[in-house]
This record gives sequence, C-alpha cells and structure tokens, in this order.
Amino acid sequence: MSGKIYIIPNTLGNASLDNSIPVYTNKIIQNLDIYIVENKKSAIRFIKNICPEKSTSKLNFLTLNKFSDEFEISNYLNPCLNGQSIGLLSDAGCPAIADPGSEIIRMAHERKIKIIPLVGPSSVLLGMMSSGMNGQNFAFNGYLPLNKLDRKLKLKKLEKRSYVERQAQIFIETPYRNTNILKELCNILNPNTELCIACDLTLPSEKIYTKQICDWKNYKIELNKKPTTFIIQKN
Amino acid sequence: MSGKIYIIPNTLGNASLDNSIPVYTNKIIQNLDIYIVENKKSAIRFIKNICPEKSTSKLNFLTLNKFSDEFEISNYLNPCLNGQSIGLLSDAGCPAIADPGSEIIRMAHERKIKIIPLVGPSSVLLGMMSSGMNGQNFAFNGYLPLNKLDRKLKLKKLEKRSYVERQAQIFIETPYRNTNILKELCNILNPNTELCIACDLTLPSEKIYTKQICDWKNYKIELNKKPTTFIIQKN
Repeated sequence: MSGKIYIIPNTLGNASLDNSIPVYTNKIIQNLDIYIVENKKSAIRFIKNICPEKSTSKLNFLTLNKFSDEFEISNYLNPCLNGQSIGLLSDAGCPAIADPGSEIIRMAHERKIKIIPLVGPSSVLLGMMSSGMNGQNFAFNGYLPLNKLDRKLKLKKLEKRSYVERQAQIFIETPYRNTNILKELCNILNPNTELCIACDLTLPSEKIYTKQICDWKNYKIELNKKPTTFIIQKN
Repeated sequence: MSGKIYIIPNTLGNASLDNSIPVYTNKIIQNLDIYIVENKKSAIRFIKNICPEKSTSKLNFLTLNKFSDEFEISNYLNPCLNGQSIGLLSDAGCPAIADPGSEIIRMAHERKIKIIPLVGPSSVLLGMMSSGMNGQNFAFNGYLPLNKLDRKLKLKKLEKRSYVERQAQIFIETPYRNTNILKELCNILNPNTELCIACDLTLPSEKIYTKQICDWKNYKIELNKKPTTFIIQKN
C-alpha cells in the first residue's frame, strides 16, 4: 500500500485556526511525520499550533522553494513508495496556488500516488467571492511583471480581456509594492473600470472594497506590506 | 451600526462538516437569522447540520436563483440597514463562485455594507490545487456552451490559450453530461494535452487524476451524475 500526499492549506498570516482550518486537518497532521514545506520554521509553527501535542523532533522536513535542487525534489515522494504519507504545506494559504507545490503534485500523478486536497483559506478565492465580480468567469494571473512598461502593457491587456470576455482578472503583488501598484492602477486603468482590493483576508484587520478607479483615486487605504488580492473588471 | 453580509460556503454534496467547514462558521450561524439562499430546503439542512440547536421557525429565507425577481432582489439587503446581518449560502461550495451571489455582493459594495467571506470548500480551487498544473496562472470558465459546435470551438480556444499563455483552463459541466463531455474531450483535444478530472471532491468517493488525452482514451472512469471539475493544459 503506497502512501498518499495531503495538500494542506495554512492560515493566511496570523489568522486564527478556528476561522480558517476545518478540524479534520488536525487528525491528518497527527498522523503525518514527513512534510514538503516552503519554510521549515513556519511549517513547525503551523503544525504546533494545530496539534500542540505533536513532537516535532521526529518530523522530517523537505524544503521546496526557488533554491531547491531539482534532482533532490525528484526524490521527495520516495517515502510514499514505502507506504508513508506526506503533507505538502506552504507558508500561507493553499499549496500549489500562487505558491510552490504544483511540480510535486505533477510528480504524484505520474507515479500514481493518491492526492488528497484539504480545505482551507485561499486569498485568491476569498477575494473573488467577495468582489461582486463575475464568479462564472475569472482568471488568476499571479504576480505582475517587474518591468514598469511590461506591467503597464499587462494591465491594459487584462483590463481589455475583462471587458471583451467578461472575465474578472485577479493578480497579486509583493506586499511592499502594494501602495505603488495602486497608484499605477489609478493612472493606467479606465476611470470606470472596477477594482476590488481584498486586504488582510481572514484577519481582524480585513478590508474588502470594490470601487471604480475614479473613486479609488480619492480614497485613502493603507496597503503597505499587507497581503492583498487585486481584481479588475471593466463593464 | 449597519449589519454585515457573511458569505458562507456549504459542503460539497454530503461531505462531512469536519473536513469542510471551520468551526467559526458555527458561531456565525448561531447568530444569523436571515439568509439569502439558492434553495430553502438545502439551506435548512446545512444550518441544522452545523447548528442543530438552532430553531428554524424564526429564520427568514430570501431565495436567489434564476427564477428570482430582480426588483425583489434589490430589497434583499434592506435588513442590513436596520443593523441585522445576513448570510449568503449556496447549495454546494462557495457562493458567488460558479453559483449565484455576485449580484448580492455587488449591491453590498454599492451600499457600503461590510462583506465577510468565510472559509470553505470550492471544487474549482480544490481541483486546481490537485491538478499539478500551473497554479500561478489559471482561469475558471464556468459551464461550456450547450451547442455542440460552439462547445468544440470553445474547447479548442481554451486548449490553445493553455498552451500559448501557459494558463490552465478550468471548466464544469452539468453532472449528467460528464460522460459525454469526457468522450468529446478525447475526440477534440490534442493527444498530449493534459486533462485533470477531479470528481466527488471532499467525499469518500473522491477521485483526482491528471493524464494526457491519449491515456484518458483507454481509461475507464464513472463520472455520470458526479460533480466534476475539468482542467486542461497543453504543454
């Protein structure tokens, strides 16, 4: 009997477990000793938070981030062949969504390892649910390009698509660039394009507003270093 | 003080609350007496399941589906103006995602009513997490067109976009048409296009496989009447 891979969502920032994680995740973590993680320290924090009685000394952590060696990663699922199950965990939200993990899941499919996704918070989904925009047709575009001109072209393209295809366009930014990107959105997009800003989702400081660009221009909101989901839709 | 609107995800089918719904949802439902729902009967079932001690006789249900009257809907948020909070609930999964609700959320933004999305299961997100496909760039396209030729053109367009833009393409079908659509995908798509089929998510009968179209042609899977998420990506 081969092991399984559990895809385990983490809380968004310091959100409470009560509002983010179903209790079943506790049972899964109690029985898992091997984890593929973005960052060992934050993984231990989550595991101890959800399952304080668990001893971390016997846990095995395999790191998956941009510094991970491709050859090493190809061995990460070997424990499954010996019947051991593995947890895939990211620093915040859902693994493999705007976060590392899809390469591991791809390997799991190739090796016919059973994949079990657990329920948890995703800033992409929570933002989209709360936007009032078209939930029958939307795209998540990840991070915007770093180069200013490329970013402008990308934003114009997304705005056009949101209008022509009636497809809401979701993207994110590195949190310390949020203030800057909001300024750019106000400059680049059409005044009546709608922009949803969903900031600090699931946290007590959560803020979710959908307004037209012309209204955002005169609205003060503090986004600096706060995890934020942006969604645009031109009507 | 005006009331809030809580966006409350439901379980997917008869999945257990333990693996689908964080306990915080219980606290919210205990204190909510007004619900905007797709279907009153299934809403009561969910509310009683999550909060058995709650008396349903004093609950107020406002129905939101394709038969709802536009003028009536425009009054659904009036209780918020009197300080009462409202729950928005769909039959399965997340309201406003592949389900009614976004028009209510749009109104809430216009009227500056506070919107609070709760965490819960989404077959779109759980399917995407489990697909092994590009979680940095994906689109949810809702239902495919009913007309056979339109459906074929749409599928070819989605396949092309998945290749050119490296954007995974998610869609759903009315469950009784699943067997038929799988046949069509096998006939229409490129043999090496990858297809993820995520069926009965969060249920004991859950099945999630990503395979190339050429492999799906020879694979037997029973999808008839089972809620299924389809995702394609050409590499």
